[in-house]
Amino acid sequence: MAKQLQARRLEGIDHNPWVEFIRLSKEYDVVNLGQGFPDFSPPDFAVQAFQQATTGNFMLNQYTMAFGYPPLTKILASFFGKLLGQEMDPLKNVLVTVGAYGALFTAFQALVDEGDEVIIIEPAFDCYEPMTMMAGGCPVFVSLRPSPAPKGQLGSSNDWQLDPTELASKFTPRTKILVLNTPNNPLGKVFSKKELELVAALCQQHDVLCISDEVYQWLVYDGHQHVSIASLPGMWDRTLTIGSAGKSFSATGWKVGWVMGPDNIMKHLRTVHQNSIFHCPTQAQAAVAQCFEREQQHFGQPSSYFLQLPQAMGLNRDHMIQSLQSVGLKPLIPQGSYFLIADISDFKSSMPDLPGAMDDPYDRRFAKWMIKNKGLAAIPVSIFYSRPHQKDFDHYVRFCFVKEKTTLQAMDERLCSWKGEP
Amino acid sequence: MAKQLQARRLEGIDHNPWVEFIRLSKEYDVVNLGQGFPDFSPPDFAVQAFQQATTGNFMLNQYTMAFGYPPLTKILASFFGKLLGQEMDPLKNVLVTVGAYGALFTAFQALVDEGDEVIIIEPAFDCYEPMTMMAGGCPVFVSLRPSPAPKGQLGSSNDWQLDPTELASKFTPRTKILVLNTPNNPLGKVFSKKELELVAALCQQHDVLCISDEVYQWLVYDGHQHVSIASLPGMWDRTLTIGSAGKSFSATGWKVGWVMGPDNIMKHLRTVHQNSIFHCPTQAQAAVAQCFEREQQHFGQPSSYFLQLPQAMGLNRDHMIQSLQSVGLKPLIPQGSYFLIADISDFKSSMPDLPGAMDDPYDRRFAKWMIKNKGLAAIPVSIFYSRPHQKDFDHYVRFCFVKEKTTLQAMDERLCSWKGEP
Ligand SMILES: CSCCC(=O)C(=O)O
Ligand SMILES: CSCCC(=O)C(=O)O
Repeated sequence: MAKQLQARRLEGIDHNPWVEFIRLSKEYDVVNLGQGFPDFSPPDFAVQAFQQATTGNFMLNQYTMAFGYPPLTKILASFFGKLLGQEMDPLKNVLVTVGAYGALFTAFQALVDEGDEVIIIEPAFDCYEPMTMMAGGCPVFVSLRPSPAPKGQLGSSNDWQLDPTELASKFTPRTKILVLNTPNNPLGKVFSKKELELVAALCQQHDVLCISDEVYQWLVYDGHQHVSIASLPGMWDRTLTIGSAGKSFSATGWKVGWVMGPDNIMKHLRTVHQNSIFHCPTQAQAAVAQCFEREQQHFGQPSSYFLQLPQAMGLNRDHMIQSLQSVGLKPLIPQGSYFLIADISDFKSSMPDLPGAMDDPYDRRFAKWMIKNKGLAAIPVSIFYSRPHQKDFDHYVRFCFVKEKTTLQAMDERLCSWKGEP
Repeated sequence: MAKQLQARRLEGIDHNPWVEFIRLSKEYDVVNLGQGFPDFSPPDFAVQAFQQATTGNFMLNQYTMAFGYPPLTKILASFFGKLLGQEMDPLKNVLVTVGAYGALFTAFQALVDEGDEVIIIEPAFDCYEPMTMMAGGCPVFVSLRPSPAPKGQLGSSNDWQLDPTELASKFTPRTKILVLNTPNNPLGKVFSKKELELVAALCQQHDVLCISDEVYQWLVYDGHQHVSIASLPGMWDRTLTIGSAGKSFSATGWKVGWVMGPDNIMKHLRTVHQNSIFHCPTQAQAAVAQCFEREQQHFGQPSSYFLQLPQAMGLNRDHMIQSLQSVGLKPLIPQGSYFLIADISDFKSSMPDLPGAMDDPYDRRFAKWMIKNKGLAAIPVSIFYSRPHQKDFDHYVRFCFVKEKTTLQAMDERLCSWKGEP
């Protein structure tokens, strides 16, 4: 074609680190602690729910309502309505999407125009930036600042802080949206109520919407509490809260997510939805509805999966922290999520010349070196930073611990060969 | 919010006829011949394949490769490679999407820029227009012209024709894409090789891409043959061919579709894909892979579902034609798809004053009247036309015949009450 083939909206968003690292991890024989997915089965009730959706009522093989399978939007409205202290109408306040990823995309497309500014708190899940750009928006970054470990705690703290003055300075008349992610991926930071109040005050003062990505909401440790910013006074009206069945029920392949918010915003997301995918697969939605019914019955009890999973993953976290420390990888202790980041500064000093492309930040070269030479896959943390900040944060790699015990043991074996390095 | 909430790309695309008519059909006790989905089960092998995907390898509950589950892209490449006479690389020439709908959206977002023109042949599946607009493009319409019935054939022909001069006049230096849909929804027209050659010649002459929506490719009757425009000389390089597991295996709720084309175009679709949904649900993809494996073994044999379904639906078509004719609804005989359109001119003359909004085209009022008063849901054909042409084509309604025999019998019962009307 003589004409330019691709639309301009794709400029600068063609590279995807996941595609790159997933491929690379498959090429080598690795213990995969990279991409965030469980390597164990979803709980029995979830597996059975999906199975039932494929064997029961045969009409579940056909289209359902565009904005969500009615039993699912109904239970989501009632389940989260209680948590957020907000009466929700299943038809008006809930949209079922192709994963939380699809929810994010739908929100950006619905709300962001050419030139609108979107504030992103770094480190940030990497898709916020290209999704903003694809919608014509302008990402504005503010970095969490590393903080020392609390007294008496091993390792450093992951409770990096927002500088209130710096954050406030990022708001301009063009600011349309602030993206929040708590528990944060990759850091595992759980934003405190006080921190959220700061963010909320600024959003209200500057008439800015908040997209709150809360896919790891159940995964909190050491008594940390997840708070939804939509539950703070005045925030429901300007917040979209995003969740994921994949992360909630250890079934990332189901690709069922949701976004909840006030009807006057949601109606624009519905417009995008009906002009992009029209509706989400029916059976997976039916399965998720069942899973929530089950969780609603067990909520707050020891049998609740939303309590069991973080309990189990907390043990994994502790195991991984010990193992990584033993070889000089210095993990930050995550408050939530199923990731931790480890400080590799010592390696950067002692093995500065790892192979890699000229402008590859150190952590990318380190992660590739681990895959190829150590049989361990993790994710370089610089992918969670905008380009200008990557060099400042190229001394961390992210490990995923939503894994079988046997996988962690396999990790331990691979780590044995590290003794003596760097 | 004081600022405008929604992005400008949503202007004029907030209404969706499916959402409207699906809701309306649910409010009344109707025999539903509206939205295009089977009211019977997918074939046993398909149901079993999905069931197996939910009960077998538990890792199918987790993420797969972003651009498609490898066994699925592999079989699609080999299956369609043979049909299109084109060597295909599963990684480069195939993308798995959230239904054909998602494939269309992905293609428009990848290729259409502000001001680009997209030629749409009317009547056209209604999403092409808003998807073009959402990408900033400018839809340019050309209408198929009604033609008289061939000698000796009952009813009128659905083989409406393109006027070659008119079609040629629609191409300008801004034309980026022509959208083709064969077999056509709602008309059921199967484009002949000669017609496709005309379209192909114009695309090549004007350096225009073709998006070919072929979701009803197996559903052809009376010896009509589906031809993929990508198989014509010189067209592979400029064509995206779109298909649907939902339509192929009578499982519209699975929402698995695909788009195939040359790598230099596909790579831009992959960019959109990785920044919108990242990947499609794993288990449904595994099920579709199984279904294609099965079809490949049975291809061309009487046991092939791609032959069995059109055989059964051909009988439904004939049944419906007779029934509708008996009450003065004048069906056009479709060559393909699972829809037919019926001429309601006689009703328009005899009952011109059906209730409805001031500017509602007649067929919308008629369709609503049928739902409310006759317990029959069908789709007004004007929704498949751009606004300026709606009034010229407001004397048809579309009926879907991918239904159980018992549904057609229920239709017959409802039609009994029509005797004597109009
Ligand atoms: C785009 S796949 C990313 C998976 C994930 O959630 C993560 O690993 O952070
Ligand atoms: C957007 S749902 C449309 C279903 C369909 O394919 C049709 O009925 O034409």
